[in-house]
Amino acid sequence: MPDFIPPDSVGLVTPTTHHFQKPLQLSGGETLSDYALVYETYGELNTSGSNALLICHALSSNHHAAGYHGLADKKPGWWENIVGPGKTIDTNHFFVVCCNNLGGCFGSTGPSTAHPSTGKPYGPDFPIVTVHDWVTSQAQLANVLGVDTWAAVIGGSLGGMQVLQWSMDYPDRLRHAIVIAASSKLTAQNIAFNEVARQAIRSDPDFHDGRYYEHDTEPQRGLRIARMLGHITYLSDDIMGEKFGRDLRDGKIGFDYNADFQVESYLRYQADSFVGNFDANTYLLMTKALDYFDPAGPTHGDLAKAFAPIKSRFLVMSFTSDWRFSPERSREIVKALHDNDLNVSYAEIKASHGHDAFLMKIPQYLDVFGAYMHRIEQEIN
Amino acid sequence: MPDFIPPDSVGLVTPTTHHFQKPLQLSGGETLSDYALVYETYGELNTSGSNALLICHALSSNHHAAGYHGLADKKPGWWENIVGPGKTIDTNHFFVVCCNNLGGCFGSTGPSTAHPSTGKPYGPDFPIVTVHDWVTSQAQLANVLGVDTWAAVIGGSLGGMQVLQWSMDYPDRLRHAIVIAASSKLTAQNIAFNEVARQAIRSDPDFHDGRYYEHDTEPQRGLRIARMLGHITYLSDDIMGEKFGRDLRDGKIGFDYNADFQVESYLRYQADSFVGNFDANTYLLMTKALDYFDPAGPTHGDLAKAFAPIKSRFLVMSFTSDWRFSPERSREIVKALHDNDLNVSYAEIKASHGHDAFLMKIPQYLDVFGAYMHRIEQEIN
Repeated sequence: MPDFIPPDSVGLVTPTTHHFQKPLQLSGGETLSDYALVYETYGELNTSGSNALLICHALSSNHHAAGYHGLADKKPGWWENIVGPGKTIDTNHFFVVCCNNLGGCFGSTGPSTAHPSTGKPYGPDFPIVTVHDWVTSQAQLANVLGVDTWAAVIGGSLGGMQVLQWSMDYPDRLRHAIVIAASSKLTAQNIAFNEVARQAIRSDPDFHDGRYYEHDTEPQRGLRIARMLGHITYLSDDIMGEKFGRDLRDGKIGFDYNADFQVESYLRYQADSFVGNFDANTYLLMTKALDYFDPAGPTHGDLAKAFAPIKSRFLVMSFTSDWRFSPERSREIVKALHDNDLNVSYAEIKASHGHDAFLMKIPQYLDVFGAYMHRIEQEIN
Repeated sequence: MPDFIPPDSVGLVTPTTHHFQKPLQLSGGETLSDYALVYETYGELNTSGSNALLICHALSSNHHAAGYHGLADKKPGWWENIVGPGKTIDTNHFFVVCCNNLGGCFGSTGPSTAHPSTGKPYGPDFPIVTVHDWVTSQAQLANVLGVDTWAAVIGGSLGGMQVLQWSMDYPDRLRHAIVIAASSKLTAQNIAFNEVARQAIRSDPDFHDGRYYEHDTEPQRGLRIARMLGHITYLSDDIMGEKFGRDLRDGKIGFDYNADFQVESYLRYQADSFVGNFDANTYLLMTKALDYFDPAGPTHGDLAKAFAPIKSRFLVMSFTSDWRFSPERSREIVKALHDNDLNVSYAEIKASHGHDAFLMKIPQYLDVFGAYMHRIEQEIN
């Protein structure tokens, strides 16, 4: 392995793309005649097929959860802190799978993919997909990989919603469900933030009703605003205070519209590095999947009733300073699981990092998560 | 008085504009050679001049605090709930003044005003003004009105910051300071939200570097985003949940980008009614005044030291669900005032309405506020 890769990394990894020929019926009524999913795997599937884990990604993330794609990579996968040999999700013991969700912009079929009948990018003709649709497609991927039952399905944020959906849709195909910093539905405030992000993208003159690919442009202004706004909700007020406070960029205020404060520079930097690396139509789709997720919708708000089919055991974790999906949201999930006499471990982790804490190396978080993973490991035969 | 005007309203009111010829030196180093302030007054100044109150307005507000401008008015002034004959701020006893701040867009000199030397709107050449500059200009207005000492200076949010500044800059010119839902400085998160709003406006192609007046357009897209975002921070998560929850607009989700949820319609409506009624350059200025406000800056963060010149008595009020300027921010102000042995009443009002609570008829709020106003009333001779 090249020198710069630490020994506890899965190292160099190569994504795989699988083309599905079987049509996929979507929640919105449309059908995808064929589609592709790009995914990565780390570790080896054992002969009994009992050590497979599925990691579900969050809004702006992808299939590249761990390791490096090449020697020029500046950064490893998005969950490198958690996934690797000897780490919390230990690739010495588990076969770990992570795929880019349908509608994504990292290789799975999505708005930027060529429409099979026109050869042009789908753009706004790509249907809005739901968490349920993602889980259906992930189950197809499990079939391809020869995984009948996941040892665990694991995810944070929007990923955690997929875990909940897995446990409802395929109760016999996962033994454990690990739901981190998630919610069983968005609040009005959550939806409101998503709507502002969408309006920023859709009102950008470069959006061209979603057909910007054909105009050789993209709604960069809108995507920048969406990303800046997202970042505010991923961090807590406290951690922003700790990281930036009212620190000035040049020691004094400028009485102009350059960035006066460090926090302004930070947001501008985050926005700049997002555009060019993420597709605006995918951003729109992902926020809609979030808004629409509401497993208790069909049971008129009765989450316990919605959870009736579930059989798996659960680890639910939340973070005290997460105001996007606060611990209260996790407690609602835990309560509804308990109402079904399910086996649930719940940990409310004290952390100042806000929603993004699920990506961080926080000792208490790693302890709880690691202990649970160790328990799963011991069940594997 | 016309029939549609309730008896506890100040009724039909007419704004007055005063043109100041004396140059105003601004905090940023520039000087305004002349400027105008538009203001309204309600009630009568008594012969001793002891019953004058100054109301300072918040970010997007103006001099029209109470009453109606004409028979066609759909809505009264922004603080009609509080200001009027027999109301909390009782115009039967007080002479109430409210002016549109410098840099505003409702008649006071601001970016949309013609520059005296070019005849074209100032646009981006209008200097960034600070809370201190506003207070200086308001003191000039007090001179014009023959008010030597205010019985009280009163304001919510950014208005409360002006009250603090008044008490520091002119300790002998106010007897009482009423600071509602305010903060002695913005947090990194507050600044971050302002920065996203500014970026939305400034990146709108119709912004034209702030010279949009000359292009006969305005950055409506950006201003809409700024307003939607503002609204989220003015309301609490709880009140948004109570008002909208996950209620759908048409009973079902549409799998498209029309407004699915009531909260989306609400935000779009708020944004639509804001554009055309507010100037984008003024919005930028107001957010900068907020960001820059930091009376403890010169005393290296020691707010008690910054408050040393203050002589007035204080009523400070905050609202439990206000996450824009949380009760913690008010408690910091109260502590620093107490450290100076000042007379301070503090009330943390239980209310689910968020930051906007200061505009509402909340019984506990009106009780505390009214009792304090009654006390001031009794001092008047």
